[in-house]
Amino acid sequence: MHAISFIQDLAVIMLVAGVVTILFHRLRQPVVLGYIVAGFIIGPHTPPFGLIHDEDTIKTLAELGVIFLMFSLGLEFSLRKLFKVGATAFIAAFLEIVLMIWIGYEIGRWFDWGTMDSLFLGAILAISSTTIIVKALNDLKMKNERFAQLIFGVLIVEDILGIGIIALLSGIAVSGAVSSGEVFSTVGKLSLFMVIALVVGILVVPRLLAYVATFESNEMLLVTVLGLCFGFCLLVVKLEYSMVLGAFLIGAIMAESRQLLKIERLIEPIRDMFSAIFFVAIGLMLDPAILLDYAWPIAVITVAVVLGKIVSCGLGAFIAGNDGKTSLRVGMGLSQIGEFSFIIAALGMTLQVTSDFLYPVAVAVSVLTTLSTPYLIRAADPLSHRLGAIVPQRVARVLGMYGEWLRSIQPRGQGAMLALMIRKILLQVGVNLALVIGIFLAGAYFAERIGGHLTTWVAEPGGQKALIWGAALLLSLPFLIAAYRKLKALSMLLAEMGVKPEMAGRHTQRVRRVIAEVIPLLSLLVIFVLLAALSASILPTMELLLLIAVVAAAVVAVLWRWLIRVHTRMQVALLETLDNNVEH
Amino acid sequence: MHAISFIQDLAVIMLVAGVVTILFHRLRQPVVLGYIVAGFIIGPHTPPFGLIHDEDTIKTLAELGVIFLMFSLGLEFSLRKLFKVGATAFIAAFLEIVLMIWIGYEIGRWFDWGTMDSLFLGAILAISSTTIIVKALNDLKMKNERFAQLIFGVLIVEDILGIGIIALLSGIAVSGAVSSGEVFSTVGKLSLFMVIALVVGILVVPRLLAYVATFESNEMLLVTVLGLCFGFCLLVVKLEYSMVLGAFLIGAIMAESRQLLKIERLIEPIRDMFSAIFFVAIGLMLDPAILLDYAWPIAVITVAVVLGKIVSCGLGAFIAGNDGKTSLRVGMGLSQIGEFSFIIAALGMTLQVTSDFLYPVAVAVSVLTTLSTPYLIRAADPLSHRLGAIVPQRVARVLGMYGEWLRSIQPRGQGAMLALMIRKILLQVGVNLALVIGIFLAGAYFAERIGGHLTTWVAEPGGQKALIWGAALLLSLPFLIAAYRKLKALSMLLAEMGVKPEMAGRHTQRVRRVIAEVIPLLSLLVIFVLLAALSASILPTMELLLLIAVVAAAVVAVLWRWLIRVHTRMQVALLETLDNNVEH
Repeated sequence: MHAISFIQDLAVIMLVAGVVTILFHRLRQPVVLGYIVAGFIIGPHTPPFGLIHDEDTIKTLAELGVIFLMFSLGLEFSLRKLFKVGATAFIAAFLEIVLMIWIGYEIGRWFDWGTMDSLFLGAILAISSTTIIVKALNDLKMKNERFAQLIFGVLIVEDILGIGIIALLSGIAVSGAVSSGEVFSTVGKLSLFMVIALVVGILVVPRLLAYVATFESNEMLLVTVLGLCFGFCLLVVKLEYSMVLGAFLIGAIMAESRQLLKIERLIEPIRDMFSAIFFVAIGLMLDPAILLDYAWPIAVITVAVVLGKIVSCGLGAFIAGNDGKTSLRVGMGLSQIGEFSFIIAALGMTLQVTSDFLYPVAVAVSVLTTLSTPYLIRAADPLSHRLGAIVPQRVARVLGMYGEWLRSIQPRGQGAMLALMIRKILLQVGVNLALVIGIFLAGAYFAERIGGHLTTWVAEPGGQKALIWGAALLLSLPFLIAAYRKLKALSMLLAEMGVKPEMAGRHTQRVRRVIAEVIPLLSLLVIFVLLAALSASILPTMELLLLIAVVAAAVVAVLWRWLIRVHTRMQVALLETLDNNVEH
Repeated sequence: MHAISFIQDLAVIMLVAGVVTILFHRLRQPVVLGYIVAGFIIGPHTPPFGLIHDEDTIKTLAELGVIFLMFSLGLEFSLRKLFKVGATAFIAAFLEIVLMIWIGYEIGRWFDWGTMDSLFLGAILAISSTTIIVKALNDLKMKNERFAQLIFGVLIVEDILGIGIIALLSGIAVSGAVSSGEVFSTVGKLSLFMVIALVVGILVVPRLLAYVATFESNEMLLVTVLGLCFGFCLLVVKLEYSMVLGAFLIGAIMAESRQLLKIERLIEPIRDMFSAIFFVAIGLMLDPAILLDYAWPIAVITVAVVLGKIVSCGLGAFIAGNDGKTSLRVGMGLSQIGEFSFIIAALGMTLQVTSDFLYPVAVAVSVLTTLSTPYLIRAADPLSHRLGAIVPQRVARVLGMYGEWLRSIQPRGQGAMLALMIRKILLQVGVNLALVIGIFLAGAYFAERIGGHLTTWVAEPGGQKALIWGAALLLSLPFLIAAYRKLKALSMLLAEMGVKPEMAGRHTQRVRRVIAEVIPLLSLLVIFVLLAALSASILPTMELLLLIAVVAAAVVAVLWRWLIRVHTRMQVALLETLDNNVEH
């Protein structure tokens, strides 16, 4: 009976994990560390002997652990939170990730590791650990302080950027080369996919969950949630993205559902079970011999992580306008690596582009930096005092003035409102264009298959192309019209602002009207050229294109109001789900 | 990446299960049926094609489903409930199981199936399905009626008897023969193991869980619960019992913990996830060709299950003193088979003693009887009316008189109290003796290993045996003394009752005292002979035995009060955990 050895593995994992985590809890260390140590103890590399029989099955379950971890992260993510996160989070997260990838890469090259190993090392060092920070701040009872809120903001931005890094690394690992063109195209496609997935997902999934919830059966809700989660992961894998991305995205989509609390309650035990297996499986892979061999790189990388993160995050927080003390606290709170690093290291292993030593090294660095985190957070205040005493008066005054200057140039009153309005319009235009591009790309992607079905009616390939392209245009019309109207509103706003009567005199009104008409038309033209380029493979001949244009124009003329209403309804549905009280 | 095909399987299972269960919910059918049908749809035997790639991993997860199902059943079981269950439940469950095993066996033989197939068929038909009954009674809003409470009582007794059947079948399947001696010894050992496991478990596990709960971390509590659950299953497997028994027992032990509600809440989603996989995996195995080939046996067995259960359970309820209408309702409510039958059928398959067709046949019968259950429950009242009209007046009066007679002979007032006291004393003696027997059996079992450690001090095997036997006796002393004292109390009670002054005249007091002294001493003698027989392999020579007896007598004389106190403390701890306010 194969199942018995499997049950035995689970029994050993859970029993040892239980004992070690209780011990670690008493030592005031995070549970995660306990799991890793438990895995180390029962692993094949440590005496007495390997207690795990069926490592493959355990690794498969560990994969489930990753999915549930990322799914939970997505559930806690929520777009609303991202919109509310301030400049600090964006600047600090950006600085941290860019600097840490560079530092990691340079360290790897310095130790004469391969390009891929160095690149993955950089990515491994880039993102801090939510789990460990939350635990440390909880233990220190600092969860509600201002710097903690800033840290949580940074972590949210990091999650999204981390997802991007994973997608990028997968692309680079498969093609084997890093070109700026590829990076650009990967990021573009990824953003496009994420926007479309979020918009479609938020329109469909919360409604479906609300329907299932009416049956008031936890079991049915759970099965539906799991089905959607695994199903979406599968879809993402088929599109050649990482499963991790899928789990996070579907989590973020479900975060907009009314059943969020219930879903979190149902998923929590399952996540805890599988993530325990995941972290124990990490410990299983630790080989003391490798750790000893790589003691020197581990030490260097650990120091680099702590110093690099303090500097980059602290600097980021300072640039965004926080005082020195808060910035130092933010930097010191974020100075460790954790679950994201394990996931990236595992990615390198499964893609078979990194060396065997990278994973254990990452784990060792994570353990060391995790252990130091609470001490660093506690040391932030004394350190800032001491720094304050050392830094020369003049430097301190310049630094202080920077903050004041930053606050003085921030738009206030009408200016701030205007900036907010422009940002919102641009976001709406972006989302609509992403949907349009998605429709055309899907048309191009499925063109052959659709063409096959069309042969009975339209034999000629040119005609087929024209039909597909025309259909894509028809489907896109509501979004194109919406984008046009938003752009028009924007250009009117800009004309109003930019063309002042004191400059244009009596031509003011006329100039304003021209600008308000020209900008959106020009933008639409650019969009069409872009669409034509993206859908080059299904672009019909000039004559057919003209025909399509005439048909489209007729449709727009006749159905203008209806198309607007369709779009408005979708937008209302989306915003209702997002529970945002923005006017549309 | 092996994990992707696994995720794909999970996605297919959960997505199809989700859709089908929603459909079945709308059709007012149990979710379980939906899962089985979902498995049938995606299975390898039905078009379009097999959607599952890695059936082995799915089956391993299905095993986890069985463990969590039985663990949950154990959590809901609780010894308190068993103590409170009335005579109806015991009589009905006993009659049902005996009759159904016999009917199943005879049907199997009639179809010329093998002995093992017939025997397993009998066991498969023996036990009704808690899941399906609860769902049906919920839907009919009859959960709080009297007959529903009787049904739940029957189900609790069935669980315990079902566990016994599984243990027995494993033994029979391994040895390949059914002898009454073996049945007796298996049942004896099983009862012994269950008593010891429950007593030790209830002393240890709830305390441990209460300790872990002080950390107020759901994650740690869950990991501990899972560790104990899998660990205990493993122990039970090493003792050559079924994993199912282990999961149920550890569940029943945890049911006595104060953290029961929290544990149930944490385990529920995990159980739902894996039991969904379990039921879908059952559907996967359904082959329409086999079902068609065995259509005739399936029809016969289905009718036999419905009629057999109505008669046996109804009769049992009636014999225990319920009126005809209630009895009929009890019988018709219990007339189906479900999850226990699948587990028994799976047992036959994994032990490789049953034919391939048995599992699908059992599933088909379960599906048919599940579909009929709600109609049968609703038909019970009209049927009892019609039966009441058909049955001749005289028969009806005789039947009515039976119930009255039964109520008249039931002990009341002092008599009932006395019966209760005697029952309680016998239970306590039984538990203490089970522990003593357990200690001696463990001594005999580990004798060789312990002897190996002793050789440095005692070279001679005879001396080693004497030491082990003496140690076992020493350990047993608190329980032996407790049993002796309970027996003395019982015999005093019996002497008081049995020897009345009008019979024994002026000798009354003396006769009573003799009886009160003789009975416990005789019982102790019987116990020692029994122990000597059970521990024959480590029984020392006569001289050494005498020496041990002298030492034991001295220990008893000196430590009498202390030994009583030790036992009392353990008993208090046990009863406190059971939250029973019985005097000790």
